[in-house]
Amino acid sequence: MEEYLKFACEIAKYAGKEMLNHFDVNEEYDYKEDKTVVTKSDKDINHYLIEKVKKHYPSHSVIGEEESYIQDSNYAWVCDPIDGTGMFIERIPVAVFSLALVIDGVPKVAVVYDPFFDKMYTAIQGQGAYCNNERIHVNNKKLYDEGYRMNLEMWNKAEYDTLLLAKEFIDKAALSQIGSVARSCMAIASGDFSCDIFPGTKHANCDIAASCLIVKEAGGMVTNIFGEDQRYDQDIKGAIISNGISHEEVLSIIKKCL
Amino acid sequence: MEEYLKFACEIAKYAGKEMLNHFDVNEEYDYKEDKTVVTKSDKDINHYLIEKVKKHYPSHSVIGEEESYIQDSNYAWVCDPIDGTGMFIERIPVAVFSLALVIDGVPKVAVVYDPFFDKMYTAIQGQGAYCNNERIHVNNKKLYDEGYRMNLEMWNKAEYDTLLLAKEFIDKAALSQIGSVARSCMAIASGDFSCDIFPGTKHANCDIAASCLIVKEAGGMVTNIFGEDQRYDQDIKGAIISNGISHEEVLSIIKKCL
Repeated sequence: MEEYLKFACEIAKYAGKEMLNHFDVNEEYDYKEDKTVVTKSDKDINHYLIEKVKKHYPSHSVIGEEESYIQDSNYAWVCDPIDGTGMFIERIPVAVFSLALVIDGVPKVAVVYDPFFDKMYTAIQGQGAYCNNERIHVNNKKLYDEGYRMNLEMWNKAEYDTLLLAKEFIDKAALSQIGSVARSCMAIASGDFSCDIFPGTKHANCDIAASCLIVKEAGGMVTNIFGEDQRYDQDIKGAIISNGISHEEVLSIIKKCL
Repeated sequence: MEEYLKFACEIAKYAGKEMLNHFDVNEEYDYKEDKTVVTKSDKDINHYLIEKVKKHYPSHSVIGEEESYIQDSNYAWVCDPIDGTGMFIERIPVAVFSLALVIDGVPKVAVVYDPFFDKMYTAIQGQGAYCNNERIHVNNKKLYDEGYRMNLEMWNKAEYDTLLLAKEFIDKAALSQIGSVARSCMAIASGDFSCDIFPGTKHANCDIAASCLIVKEAGGMVTNIFGEDQRYDQDIKGAIISNGISHEEVLSIIKKCL
């Protein structure tokens, strides 16, 4: 697994350079069918990953936000080349690169890279979560505690009304919607945020796969929106990502809204 | 006015250094009565401004988010030492310094400084808006246009239900809630975001005074939540900050929610 992690970190460093080179310039972009944004950098980073996997692990699959390479394999590299592209093109520095090696549906190795602060978040299943090689941990805040931050991306294409969630939580948490679920998850893994509710259901494993492992290894909890485990080599049913201690309470409130 | 702008920029540079020195460390902070956060840096920057105004312009007032110095004057330096403190302590790099010279209730000179990218946004009334001495302009997007970004801070202490706003706009705009209204306003002035609805009503002139002038000088429009002009040397009735072209349409929708 260490070899896979090293491979993932090398891809992340390449991606980070691409991102910095194309941040705060008039980066080319298009809108996808779901009205989210894709830049040339997203496509280039995704394609670079596929070329590298073809070279080093040609039997593995790549499931990318922009391009995939599907093999008959239980190993899948699941990647969001730029998570938070909308903010990225609007020059808000919260976007990150995200890559996980998912084996039989379970993230085993994960990297999220924040190029703006050169922070490499990493995890191997069972070995803890790290930021630049230092252990990181979730916080132990509960709903209603001061500074319980919940990131909640409201999204009218979810299968339920995400506004109901905001209504339920506005008195119980400090809400935000920073535009990158993976960046938000790294804030959870680092003890800064306490929870993220991710409504995405279409191909959204790319956004969450790496974060899922890193948050779990930092002591947190990750389930789908119904509180269940799920595979990360296929579309997911949203996600609740939390510090663990508040997970059941958050889940019980969400259940009222579904 | 050039002299005042130079003075404001010097304070901003000092504030930026303070912010960078205290970012991503375990900065001391407390919660205020309104449950928002204040750090030692907020207080230090605010106090530094007061000392400097006392020295250079002793007859002027200072209205600060954390500390004020009230003189019998129609000149007021209106300051939010760190706008976005909640995000600042959670290591999300969207916080900025904000300072305006308000004369007879009208912002005449304004500075917003983003220390993370060393971006100094400036304006003098009637002379345009600048970022690092280059002219900046709002965009010309309308509601429903692709990439019409509306930043909307949902806040249960506003005098109306901010969730209703989210409900109205979720189909008409890409929503976010980045946690710093001044940073969001600079994105509007730069043409990246298109609108911000700011629900704050208590002492909130500090958050908005500088942004108000910079956005207007970049071609945008700023009113209170009812669509009226307002003074910026006293508490304000929220704010709508837009690219101008979409202001009336946004306003007509907001009116349904108040």
